[in-house]
Amino acid sequence: MGLRSGAEYIESLKKRKPSVYCLGERVDNVLEHPVLKSTIATVARTFDLAKNPKYEDLLTVESPLLNGERVNRFLQPFMSVDHLVKRQHQIRFLQRRLGSCALRCTGLGMANALWETCYQIDKAKGTNYLDRLKDWLKYIQKYDIYETGCMMDTKGHRGLRPSKQPDPDMYLHIVERRPNGIVVRGAKASQSGPAISNETAVIPSTYGHDEADAPYAVAYTGDDRDLGNPRYGGGFGSTSLMIFDDVFIPNERVFMAGEWEFSAVVVRTMGLMVRMWQCGCRPALMELLTGAAAFAAETNGVANAPHIRSKLNDMTIHSQTAWGLALAAAYLGKPSPSGSGIVLPDSLTINVGKYRSVEGYWECCKIANDIGGGLVTTVPSFKDYENPETHGWLEKYLQANPAIPTEHRMRIMRLIQCMVEGPMAGGIHQSGGPLENQKIIIGRNGEFEEKIHDAKVLCGILPEED
Amino acid sequence: MGLRSGAEYIESLKKRKPSVYCLGERVDNVLEHPVLKSTIATVARTFDLAKNPKYEDLLTVESPLLNGERVNRFLQPFMSVDHLVKRQHQIRFLQRRLGSCALRCTGLGMANALWETCYQIDKAKGTNYLDRLKDWLKYIQKYDIYETGCMMDTKGHRGLRPSKQPDPDMYLHIVERRPNGIVVRGAKASQSGPAISNETAVIPSTYGHDEADAPYAVAYTGDDRDLGNPRYGGGFGSTSLMIFDDVFIPNERVFMAGEWEFSAVVVRTMGLMVRMWQCGCRPALMELLTGAAAFAAETNGVANAPHIRSKLNDMTIHSQTAWGLALAAAYLGKPSPSGSGIVLPDSLTINVGKYRSVEGYWECCKIANDIGGGLVTTVPSFKDYENPETHGWLEKYLQANPAIPTEHRMRIMRLIQCMVEGPMAGGIHQSGGPLENQKIIIGRNGEFEEKIHDAKVLCGILPEED
Amino acid sequence: MGLRSGAEYIESLKKRKPSVYCLGERVDNVLEHPVLKSTIATVARTFDLAKNPKYEDLLTVESPLLNGERVNRFLQPFMSVDHLVKRQHQIRFLQRRLGSCALRCTGLGMANALWETCYQIDKAKGTNYLDRLKDWLKYIQKYDIYETGCMMDTKGHRGLRPSKQPDPDMYLHIVERRPNGIVVRGAKASQSGPAISNETAVIPSTYGHDEADAPYAVAYTGDDRDLGNPRYGGGFGSTSLMIFDDVFIPNERVFMAGEWEFSAVVVRTMGLMVRMWQCGCRPALMELLTGAAAFAAETNGVANAPHIRSKLNDMTIHSQTAWGLALAAAYLGKPSPSGSGIVLPDSLTINVGKYRSVEGYWECCKIANDIGGGLVTTVPSFKDYENPETHGWLEKYLQANPAIPTEHRMRIMRLIQCMVEGPMAGGIHQSGGPLENQKIIIGRNGEFEEKIHDAKVLCGILPEED
Amino acid sequence: MGLRSGAEYIESLKKRKPSVYCLGERVDNVLEHPVLKSTIATVARTFDLAKNPKYEDLLTVESPLLNGERVNRFLQPFMSVDHLVKRQHQIRFLQRRLGSCALRCTGLGMANALWETCYQIDKAKGTNYLDRLKDWLKYIQKYDIYETGCMMDTKGHRGLRPSKQPDPDMYLHIVERRPNGIVVRGAKASQSGPAISNETAVIPSTYGHDEADAPYAVAYTGDDRDLGNPRYGGGFGSTSLMIFDDVFIPNERVFMAGEWEFSAVVVRTMGLMVRMWQCGCRPALMELLTGAAAFAAETNGVANAPHIRSKLNDMTIHSQTAWGLALAAAYLGKPSPSGSGIVLPDSLTINVGKYRSVEGYWECCKIANDIGGGLVTTVPSFKDYENPETHGWLEKYLQANPAIPTEHRMRIMRLIQCMVEGPMAGGIHQSGGPLENQKIIIGRNGEFEEKIHDAKVLCGILPEED
Repeated sequence: MGLRSGAEYIESLKKRKPSVYCLGERVDNVLEHPVLKSTIATVARTFDLAKNPKYEDLLTVESPLLNGERVNRFLQPFMSVDHLVKRQHQIRFLQRRLGSCALRCTGLGMANALWETCYQIDKAKGTNYLDRLKDWLKYIQKYDIYETGCMMDTKGHRGLRPSKQPDPDMYLHIVERRPNGIVVRGAKASQSGPAISNETAVIPSTYGHDEADAPYAVAYTGDDRDLGNPRYGGGFGSTSLMIFDDVFIPNERVFMAGEWEFSAVVVRTMGLMVRMWQCGCRPALMELLTGAAAFAAETNGVANAPHIRSKLNDMTIHSQTAWGLALAAAYLGKPSPSGSGIVLPDSLTINVGKYRSVEGYWECCKIANDIGGGLVTTVPSFKDYENPETHGWLEKYLQANPAIPTEHRMRIMRLIQCMVEGPMAGGIHQSGGPLENQKIIIGRNGEFEEKIHDAKVLCGILPEED
Repeated sequence: MGLRSGAEYIESLKKRKPSVYCLGERVDNVLEHPVLKSTIATVARTFDLAKNPKYEDLLTVESPLLNGERVNRFLQPFMSVDHLVKRQHQIRFLQRRLGSCALRCTGLGMANALWETCYQIDKAKGTNYLDRLKDWLKYIQKYDIYETGCMMDTKGHRGLRPSKQPDPDMYLHIVERRPNGIVVRGAKASQSGPAISNETAVIPSTYGHDEADAPYAVAYTGDDRDLGNPRYGGGFGSTSLMIFDDVFIPNERVFMAGEWEFSAVVVRTMGLMVRMWQCGCRPALMELLTGAAAFAAETNGVANAPHIRSKLNDMTIHSQTAWGLALAAAYLGKPSPSGSGIVLPDSLTINVGKYRSVEGYWECCKIANDIGGGLVTTVPSFKDYENPETHGWLEKYLQANPAIPTEHRMRIMRLIQCMVEGPMAGGIHQSGGPLENQKIIIGRNGEFEEKIHDAKVLCGILPEED
Repeated sequence: MGLRSGAEYIESLKKRKPSVYCLGERVDNVLEHPVLKSTIATVARTFDLAKNPKYEDLLTVESPLLNGERVNRFLQPFMSVDHLVKRQHQIRFLQRRLGSCALRCTGLGMANALWETCYQIDKAKGTNYLDRLKDWLKYIQKYDIYETGCMMDTKGHRGLRPSKQPDPDMYLHIVERRPNGIVVRGAKASQSGPAISNETAVIPSTYGHDEADAPYAVAYTGDDRDLGNPRYGGGFGSTSLMIFDDVFIPNERVFMAGEWEFSAVVVRTMGLMVRMWQCGCRPALMELLTGAAAFAAETNGVANAPHIRSKLNDMTIHSQTAWGLALAAAYLGKPSPSGSGIVLPDSLTINVGKYRSVEGYWECCKIANDIGGGLVTTVPSFKDYENPETHGWLEKYLQANPAIPTEHRMRIMRLIQCMVEGPMAGGIHQSGGPLENQKIIIGRNGEFEEKIHDAKVLCGILPEED
Repeated sequence: MGLRSGAEYIESLKKRKPSVYCLGERVDNVLEHPVLKSTIATVARTFDLAKNPKYEDLLTVESPLLNGERVNRFLQPFMSVDHLVKRQHQIRFLQRRLGSCALRCTGLGMANALWETCYQIDKAKGTNYLDRLKDWLKYIQKYDIYETGCMMDTKGHRGLRPSKQPDPDMYLHIVERRPNGIVVRGAKASQSGPAISNETAVIPSTYGHDEADAPYAVAYTGDDRDLGNPRYGGGFGSTSLMIFDDVFIPNERVFMAGEWEFSAVVVRTMGLMVRMWQCGCRPALMELLTGAAAFAAETNGVANAPHIRSKLNDMTIHSQTAWGLALAAAYLGKPSPSGSGIVLPDSLTINVGKYRSVEGYWECCKIANDIGGGLVTTVPSFKDYENPETHGWLEKYLQANPAIPTEHRMRIMRLIQCMVEGPMAGGIHQSGGPLENQKIIIGRNGEFEEKIHDAKVLCGILPEED
């Protein structure tokens, strides 16, 4: 079939009829909805770039499932360290161009997490989930499908385990088993893009076409430029609460069904995947913000002030810290000890990287705001800029460095505003869980016993060894 | 006349007809405009609270200009350390109730800055500006006027001095002198509340009724609860770019007219005032955010996790650091060396306090986001909550701690969102100038020579003194 | 009797014969011991300065116990907010001149803590401890005694309560009651100055002349200038482990004897006192370090580099943050609710101040090291500088800014080394307990319920109140 | 010849007779000097470990110069990414065992820097420096020589260029050219280990056997355990000021002689090398400190307190951040664009890594101090522990967790003290230059133009590209 274009992806959305709600109203036409349009354009761009021969090595990969045919890199589970390293370069490259959320990472993470889990279940129980999964992967690779992966249950009272929740639906679960499939009920929170994807993979219990009803949290209507990032700036706009109102899933799309002993495997592997893509993605966003701040300083006429240079360097320290950790985790990758064939990034490094990227992004927000100045917060709407009654005043009084058009200054201020004074920092922060999650895993991976041992040797409590 | 009620203030707005633009349209009725309504309610609340006898000592003050009559504390320049200290308590008290911007601080700052400046000009030049100013202060005290103060010029190219700007209007200036007044041209950027105030004081050159045309940067339409802070949450919505399109100011309202040698006095004094109120205001906002995060943790069912307690304590460290510095700067206050009678807070302490409050607020954003979880970013709209088609799902799946209604959880998440993922951090950051401004003044006030001297004595380079 | 001179204090030490051990040897002559000499000089300096009429208001105070006679400020419990505020100025003033540890704070803290506790015990049990204490205070005020206060038990296993310790002596306790006194056994860890004080107050159980055997942790021998702070640089050298090997205490010096219900009172009050003096002391040390770094930059010839200025400003932010909190806590002081007459600083502010001062000192270490350069670590010994075989080379090659003698450069580098690369940061950190102690108290004082309440009002969960 | 043992290295030192001064006295016997003994033991250990077949792959490398013979990894310039990556593993491995300074990194750095420079000079000028260098490398590889590399000039006034210094000797320079060699004069500051090495390479101008006179900055005499790290804890003790008092260098050891246009090459390459080894070394030291803190918590009986676990995790974040960046910089390594054959680590990543490692080490100091408690600062001397008069008291009162001997608690506290409250943080900080050096290079490598470009595309100022 070959790689699809962005236009083909958009066309394919017309066949789906998800029940979607937004700002209190049912969305009849996903493609024309002001909130969703921008995210659809974002995904379309990822398709177009992958078709560009210039980026073949970066954005596509040989699929062992399709006899080496090149498929979109988003669709191939990791089978080598090279896969991990190129994956990091791929997402950084895309995010430098999108400045938002590429939306397709969840699907790739899920493909890996399910592969690992299916393999382990099959080995332990004699099931054939991995074969089913391979069939599905061949399908999405062949038809270049945009699929999302959903993990985050609504959780209810976090102090209680799933089975102790007053409402059994707080964690997605099977309510009926039929000869040809299962029926599931529950919800998934804070999901990226299900309303605009072709397919959705859901864990820990099930997989299937979704019929999500998705009310959206954030909306924006205005001149496109008021998005700051007018092409792809609505990235978080398609984040949804998905409702599974007794959805039937046919057997060929079921990859787990009650094997609760393997929930930890799928969750842990998916967690690793989430944190991996964070580390690859956030540097690009911080770099964009650095570029925006540098240009804002230029429009303000202070690009060469020593404290501005110093602050831009600080931003670089934050982005490169996350990027270095992203790469190191990839290079330190090792085949899963289960023998599944999946190659996993280094857990300690990736969790430290996620932690640093969150800290770094907030710091970059502070610095970009500092450099940009008050106009980051108070730049008027482009609607006022276009209004003939007010255009002249804005043109005149928002002019600063005479070498740069007022409209450019407004645009760059709006871009910083979009990246700093909105949901982006929060979204970045919580993808992959709050900081405490990373610290828990860092605690597990910290090899404290070895460190204590070496300290004891050094101060003479234990003898030196060869 | 006595203190006005909020209703009286609102009534008084009907008499003004400012030219206001917002989101590309002229605003005909300021009182009913969705963006401005919330800020008008905020100001009205400051009037109502001041009338409450319970808060007489905190929110009103004896005016020496009106023979000791009690007037709103926002209207009396500082004549004692007690004025400074109570001022800090006043703004903290208000901000704990408003969670937004009280909007009236600029007027108080301007009253002080003009007093100091008029005194100095009169002394040097034999003018009678201070008498004019006292007359005006008596008037606003007697009629309990809400007046704002405007300082921030549009600046143009920041690397060039005002007189070197290609466009002479980048800094507000006098274009005509008439026997009975002056005519000014220019603009003021990022101004709080001029469209909803009774009067506006403008520096460095002039003062007068304004006819501002104000296009607004940020707009929000939705269910009131979607503001997060449904009563006062639109605080930054009235921040305006003010255009002075050859405005006539009568002599009795002119307090400077070309005495450029005193620009530094008025700017420096106003800067001190701005940083002073920041330090008093920000602790309250951080405390509110701490309360919101604590309650969010409760709704999530994790209020007692040690890491949550630890993070709430960290937030307290941030708020109390700023508050302690706010108070210390007030207690260290000293009469202006000019002999004007104004009592000024300690400059070093107040600048350090402003710096810390900015750092602290961003840290609190990060922590509140961390504690609240993904729902801070992705909480659905109350419009969806009210839509009967989706209400049941939201009610069911956004429930967490069963002791707390879903709607309360949504409200508190929205409050955090409003305080963290919007213009608030940016607004807080830039009021009083970027961090470098504070560092410049810290550099001036740092008494490095004394510190070097003491270090030299200590290491024996200089002899010890008695 | 009047205030003693430093010489009189030193003379008075000759009468004491404490059993002191240091670096494996018994110390026969405390006054001539190389480790103790510097700390004795430090205390002597505090006596001399207090006799200087210039500092009368700062360093002495009217004693209500002696009919208003002026006594050393170290000897008078706090009876007013003015006492608290002046106390902060006193310790900052001294520390700017000593650059080390003034050593006398523990005694003043203990006087306050015992006053509060004696009052409460007397009220509850009808004892007359407070009268005894007043008699003792009159005595130390009249004869201008240097007394220390000891609180820190050795603690044993920190996970076990005192009564559960395998060894009952891990917390100081009474082993015998006699008609005329008590006998105590145990030890106190990390005590400042007992070997060179005139008297020692010990809590929680007892008070009395000590016969401490004190082995010392840190020693230094070399050219005096190699101390960096050649006059007072050995301040931590007299920190001791005190052993109470069945010491008899006569009744008139016993202020608690088994009233375990009041242990919390004395520990909590003493903790407040410790943290109060930290906040007053640390700013001075940070300021000295700032001065030293500024002068080091001058000797290196880079005093005007923008990044150096910026870093010196950062140091100022750290010192002034602690100082502002120190003052605010004093100004917010309130009479003890018990009615004892003691005036206590604000607990939340003082704990935040201590926390910030520890963070700040480490940051200042990093910055001073950065500014000073490699020579801070590798400056040769003054013994080599005095050796004629090497003097010429050092004179020649350690010269930098030609306006500043090489020897001055070596001195200032050594001063920074002394304040940064030795026990000072550690000592500062742990006085008053580790950071977690402060966080526990911040958690208790954080008024989270009030903050939650206000957040609920703001987002509409609770109604607004007048 | 094969790899030497530690004993052989020590034996070889007997043949050298450097003029060394320490604490005001000439050192006649380097091997027995209390300050130098510990550093000699450290170097000896690096020889012994390299001979251990277990570590062959890690600590030795095939030399292309010796037809693939395995030589110590410290002696082979980097010719592949694998060399870079293994180098990082090598130094981390060693530092986990030494806890101090491995001392041999400067020689390896110099070998790389000279290779690059000789190649470039030869290409430009037709000289044959690279052949000379290869001969020398063969010699040190064949005889397994410990050679150090010296770069840091004394600099004089840092605001003046070398040629503008009042004293021409402030930067090492050639004072005489003879047919068979050159004579140099000047000094090198803060040099690691020249007094105990076999040979010394000096840049930017020359190379040769040194006759350094080295006065030492820091001395320690006491029970070995009082070093904290009793085996290798004196690592900074051999840091020297080297004087070149008209030293003759024969031609075969001269690799530059006046080619000033290439000074930047050698300095820049050496700087890259220094920062590379910092990133590999510091993680190991932070990990050791983490182990020490974890064990200290165990001895205190609080190993399981949540805040202790959280702080240990924070330490892990710091160490792993530096380690991840160390590895990433190695994996991103690229052949020098000059074609010299040297493979260089990524400059931006390595500078960010150095910056983070310095920040991280200070943070780890603070945390380790916090966890260890007051005893880190006040642990008595082992001389007192061995004194029968005081042994019993220390044994009794410094006991805490009964499962751990008192002596072990004292040892671990002393180890932390050695790593935190001494010259280590300062030494770590300044190796490779102050933080501003890294920021300058980060500024050069930050690719701000590309970032600005991408930001402009995103906000629509520039068109999107394929």
